[in-house]
Amino acid sequence: MQLVRLVRILSSLPRLASFCSPFSSSAEGTARLLRVGDVLRESRRFSESDVVRYSEVSGDRNPVHFDDAFARTVAGFDGGRVVHGMLVASLFPSVIASHFPGAAYVSQTLTFKLPVYVGDEVLAEVQATYLRQYKNKYMVKFTTKCFTNEDTLVVAGEATTIIPTLTLSK
Amino acid sequence: MQLVRLVRILSSLPRLASFCSPFSSSAEGTARLLRVGDVLRESRRFSESDVVRYSEVSGDRNPVHFDDAFARTVAGFDGGRVVHGMLVASLFPSVIASHFPGAAYVSQTLTFKLPVYVGDEVLAEVQATYLRQYKNKYMVKFTTKCFTNEDTLVVAGEATTIIPTLTLSK
Repeated sequence: MQLVRLVRILSSLPRLASFCSPFSSSAEGTARLLRVGDVLRESRRFSESDVVRYSEVSGDRNPVHFDDAFARTVAGFDGGRVVHGMLVASLFPSVIASHFPGAAYVSQTLTFKLPVYVGDEVLAEVQATYLRQYKNKYMVKFTTKCFTNEDTLVVAGEATTIIPTLTLSK
Repeated sequence: MQLVRLVRILSSLPRLASFCSPFSSSAEGTARLLRVGDVLRESRRFSESDVVRYSEVSGDRNPVHFDDAFARTVAGFDGGRVVHGMLVASLFPSVIASHFPGAAYVSQTLTFKLPVYVGDEVLAEVQATYLRQYKNKYMVKFTTKCFTNEDTLVVAGEATTIIPTLTLSK
């Protein structure tokens, strides 16, 4: 079986600000298998409505997410109200699961380097750095990063997941 | 100013399965200040509706959250569909912000040790382990843990936050 390689998105290439599939396929229909170095990406703009809905389901009603003046004066967020960091970070399991349904999360580290403001375009990138068979599944480690303004790193970390197969579902 | 101490919830004491304030106050109205060792807690039962709403706002539509058979056979979750790990972990900033409005998250580590199933009662506990003044605010580190069945550790990690004041708001 020919293994069609995923596109290697090198740091020297400009990032795409909207969602794009990271895959190239010279032979449609053949299996595309994850390999170390591969990058999966997804972009998202969190709206005021998203922040309200997330607040309702999570119970996190910190006023830094709703009150511009409070966010500026109390928390020091110059741009006003911010998106919940954990909502931004939810892009990581989201993008992994969209390519590997059945993925189970083992761990995630997160450093929130800069605030994400309501309306910011956020680009999430996860890159496979380690991969090994684990029973009848695969353990994969990913670096996990979110950017705003195309190249401003706002969230960084690492995820470890167990995925049922290396075959990408999309 | 007298500093009324928070209740020290020692590991030898039984945990409460429902939400409880961790604070004792022998003098109502006096300020209660956070100290190293203090524990904040909150309990929550995530419903099927919560999982659906979180999926909609996060975009994470991994079938392990919706399909019992898939969750069992593909991901190996014996109890069927599971709550998103990042939704469970959202309890940590939620409980911190509920006591310290204006809290800003610096970092969070998360290890997902066991699945949380829809309907499970989850107890989140954060314990202050380190505290220092940071400009005109405070940097506080917390251990962060979630339990099911009162004492089964399901999520563990550590959070670093910047809080505007040590005074607890509730």
